[in-house]
Amino acid sequence: MKSEAETSSTPTVGMEDLVSLCARRGFIFQSSEIYGGINGFWDYGPLGVELKNNLKEFWWQRTVRDREDVEGIDSAIIAHPRTWEASGHVEHFADPMVDCRACKRRFRADQLDEAGHCPSRQGSSEHDFTEPRSFNLMLRTQIGASEDAASTAYLRAETCGSIFTDFKRVRDASRQKIPFGIAQIGKAFRNEINPRNFTFRSREFEQAELEFFCHPSQTEKWFEYWLERRLCFHREIGFDERRLRTRSHGADELAHYCKQAVDLEFLFPFGWKEIEGIHDRGSFDLTQHSEFSGKELSVMDEATKERFVPAVVETSAGVDRTALALLANAYEEERLEDGETRTVLHLHPVVAPIKVAVLPLSKKIGEPARKIAAELRRRWNVFYDESGNIGRRYRRQDEIGTPFCITYDFQSETDSQVTVRERDSMKQERVAESGLEAYIKSRLEEGL
Amino acid sequence: MKSEAETSSTPTVGMEDLVSLCARRGFIFQSSEIYGGINGFWDYGPLGVELKNNLKEFWWQRTVRDREDVEGIDSAIIAHPRTWEASGHVEHFADPMVDCRACKRRFRADQLDEAGHCPSRQGSSEHDFTEPRSFNLMLRTQIGASEDAASTAYLRAETCGSIFTDFKRVRDASRQKIPFGIAQIGKAFRNEINPRNFTFRSREFEQAELEFFCHPSQTEKWFEYWLERRLCFHREIGFDERRLRTRSHGADELAHYCKQAVDLEFLFPFGWKEIEGIHDRGSFDLTQHSEFSGKELSVMDEATKERFVPAVVETSAGVDRTALALLANAYEEERLEDGETRTVLHLHPVVAPIKVAVLPLSKKIGEPARKIAAELRRRWNVFYDESGNIGRRYRRQDEIGTPFCITYDFQSETDSQVTVRERDSMKQERVAESGLEAYIKSRLEEGL
Repeated sequence: MKSEAETSSTPTVGMEDLVSLCARRGFIFQSSEIYGGINGFWDYGPLGVELKNNLKEFWWQRTVRDREDVEGIDSAIIAHPRTWEASGHVEHFADPMVDCRACKRRFRADQLDEAGHCPSRQGSSEHDFTEPRSFNLMLRTQIGASEDAASTAYLRAETCGSIFTDFKRVRDASRQKIPFGIAQIGKAFRNEINPRNFTFRSREFEQAELEFFCHPSQTEKWFEYWLERRLCFHREIGFDERRLRTRSHGADELAHYCKQAVDLEFLFPFGWKEIEGIHDRGSFDLTQHSEFSGKELSVMDEATKERFVPAVVETSAGVDRTALALLANAYEEERLEDGETRTVLHLHPVVAPIKVAVLPLSKKIGEPARKIAAELRRRWNVFYDESGNIGRRYRRQDEIGTPFCITYDFQSETDSQVTVRERDSMKQERVAESGLEAYIKSRLEEGL
Repeated sequence: MKSEAETSSTPTVGMEDLVSLCARRGFIFQSSEIYGGINGFWDYGPLGVELKNNLKEFWWQRTVRDREDVEGIDSAIIAHPRTWEASGHVEHFADPMVDCRACKRRFRADQLDEAGHCPSRQGSSEHDFTEPRSFNLMLRTQIGASEDAASTAYLRAETCGSIFTDFKRVRDASRQKIPFGIAQIGKAFRNEINPRNFTFRSREFEQAELEFFCHPSQTEKWFEYWLERRLCFHREIGFDERRLRTRSHGADELAHYCKQAVDLEFLFPFGWKEIEGIHDRGSFDLTQHSEFSGKELSVMDEATKERFVPAVVETSAGVDRTALALLANAYEEERLEDGETRTVLHLHPVVAPIKVAVLPLSKKIGEPARKIAAELRRRWNVFYDESGNIGRRYRRQDEIGTPFCITYDFQSETDSQVTVRERDSMKQERVAESGLEAYIKSRLEEGL
C-alpha cells in the first residue's frame, strides 16, 4: 500500500503547454475553478470525458466483453466498513507526514527532497520539520441519521475491495469456475497529503481493476499472462514503446501480502511514473474477508476434490493517469515545412474524443455536409464546423487529436466525392460518399 | 429539493420475485453482503453493470453525441464546498426527521403513514414520536491533512452543481452559444433517513442530468421541447406506455427557485414513482454562483447586445431508478401453452445486457460455434454456453433478457445455416451464417 518511488527524469515535452491545452480546449481543468479550485480534484470537460470514456470502454471490451473468463461488476463506493478493516486499510493505509514548524506547510516524509526551501526561515533555507506521524489516507464519512461511531464509513481507497467481498455472489450467479476474473471500473478516494503533477496524484481518481482468481500453484503463470496482456493493451492504445517500461518491485517495496509486483511506467514530462501495477496478492484477500465475515470463501477443485482459497493476480490501472499519459504521449508541437508550427495530438483513433470532423468549405454547402455528419454520427462521435478559414479549422482538429477531417467542397456537389484529410500525415484523399463510412471504419480500426 | 410525494398503488408484479432474480442471476444485490449488507448501498453484478452501462451509453448518445448543442462533462464528486453553499444545500437540503421514543427507530416525518406499528408499545400499537427535526442529507467528509472546519467537504447530492460552476469554462472551450446544454452522468450521495424499495431510494446513486441554458424568455419553449424528448427516450428504451405518466408539481411542491416541474413517473410494484424530473430552474443557479464566486456568469446576446444571466431547463434522471423500472417493466412470468411457466425479461435490445447467446447443440460442435461467437463479440456482448439441455439454456437466456439465441446444430455443419430464436415470440428461423451479423444488427435496431 505504498506509493511508487517518484524518480525524476528529463521531461520530453513541457507540462505547462499540455496543461494549458487541456484547460483551453476543455479536456481537463481544476474542479470548482470559479471558487479558486480545490486541491487534488479535477473535472473532465467535453473532450476529456470522451477521451476517458473511450479508454474505459476499450479496457472493458478487452478485459470483460472479449473474454469468457472475466465478469464485470459496478459496486458502491461506500461499502461496509468491515471491508476496510479486513483489508488492513483502516489500520495501515497511511503515509508518513511531517510539518514544518516555521512555514506551517505539510509534507510527505518520503518526499522531503522535493520540499524546496522554507520561505519563513531567514537565516537558513531549510525547513524545521517535526517527527513523521502516520496519516491515514482513507476519506471518512458518517452514514445514517445518527453521528455515533457505529455509522462511520469510508470512501473506498481502491475498487478491488468489493470485488473480494462480492466474489462468492458473482461466482454463483455467473457459474464461473476457477480460474476466472472479476473486473471493475470506478472512482476511489485518497486524502493525499500533497496532490500534484496535474491529475497524476489526485484525491479523487478512477481505477480499472481486474482481480483474477486462480489456484495458488498457478499464480506465476497467470502473472506472466496478465503482464503480457496489459502491455499489449498499452501498445494497442498507441503508447510509444520508448516511453513505456516495466519495473519490478524489490522485496523491500512489496506490501506484506504481495508476493510479486511489476509496475508499468510511462515517461511523463515529470519523470517515469507508474500508470498500472500487476500484483500477485496470493490468498491474502479472500482469507482475510473469510475470517472477518465468518463466510466460507474457499472453493473445491472438481477434479481433485481439494478445497482451497483462490489466489489473486491483480491488474490495477489508474484511468486518470493513463488518460494523462495518453495526452502526454500524443502531444507534439510540430515544425512544418513552411516554417509554421502546429500543435497536434497524435491520439490513437480508439481513444480520440472525436473521430471525424465534417467541414464544408462554405456555409452555402452546409446542408449536404450536415447530412454526411448526421449519417456518420450514428456510429462515431462527429464534430461539425462550418465557420472560418479551412486551414484554421484543420488546426483546431489537429490540436484535439481528431484523426480525420472530411471536407465537402463545391466539386462534391457534382462528383459525390469528399476530401478526407488524415491528421498525422496531413495527406488528403478523394473518397466517394457512398464508400465513406466503410473507408473511415477501416482506417479507424487499423492496428486494432 | 423536496423528495417526490410517495403515493401507493396496486403492484403489477411482485417485487420479491424481481429482487430474487436480480440477486440470483447477478443483476443487483446488497453491497457487502458477506458483512450483512449496508443499508442504502447496492452493487451491480455482471448483468446489472451491462444493463446500467447500456442505459447510460444510450442516454449519452441521445443527449450528447447525437446533438450539436449539448456538451458532456465528468466532474469530481467532491467539489469546493462553496458550491453547496451557493446552491443552498448546506443550509436547506434536509428532510424532517422524527424518532419513536419507544422503539428508538427513526422516520421521515412526511412518511409517517408508512411507519407501521410500534413493536415496543404494548397497550397501544402507535409510535411515540418526537417533534420533527431538520436532518441534512449531505454526506460530509474532511479533505486535507488537518481536521479543522476549513477542510470540510461534501459528497455531491446532485450532479448538476459542477455543471453550473463549469458553465463558463465549458462554454469558452466548446465555443457554444446560448441556447446550449451541458450533460453529465455520475454518482451522487444522500444520507436518506430510510432507504427502501430496493435500489429506488438509496444513499449512493447515479444521475444523468442535462442543464440546458437559454434566454429567460425561452424557458417555456425549451421546457416543452425537453419534456417531449425525454418521453421519446423512455419510449425508445421500451417502457410500456401504460406504466409511464407525467405529473406536474403543484405550486406548493415547487422548490423556491423552481418555476415549473414535471415528474416522469413509472408504475413500480410499489406504486407510481418519479424516475426523472424536468425543471425550469430559471436563472437561480448561475445568479447564485456568480454572487458567491464574484465571477461574471452572464452572457451577451450578439444580436441585441443585451447582457443576461441564462435560464436553465433541467432534465434529471435517476439511472438506478430507471434501470430498476426497466427490470420491473420487462419482468414476466409467462404461462406457456404446455402449462409450464417461463420467467422472461422483455428488455429492449438497446439495454439488454447480452444481445446474443451462441449455443451449440452439442459440445462436439463447439469449435465452429465458438468461432461465430468470437465474430459477433467484436460488435456485441455475446454469451457462449455449450453445457446442458438446450431448452434449459433458452430459459436461462429468457430470464436475463437476451433477445436472440443462435443454435448451431449438426445440420449447420453442412448447410452453413444456424437457428436464430427470438426471445419474446420464441419463434425460430434458419439464417445463413454469412448474413448472420447483418440479420442480428437489423433486428436489434428495430424501433430505434
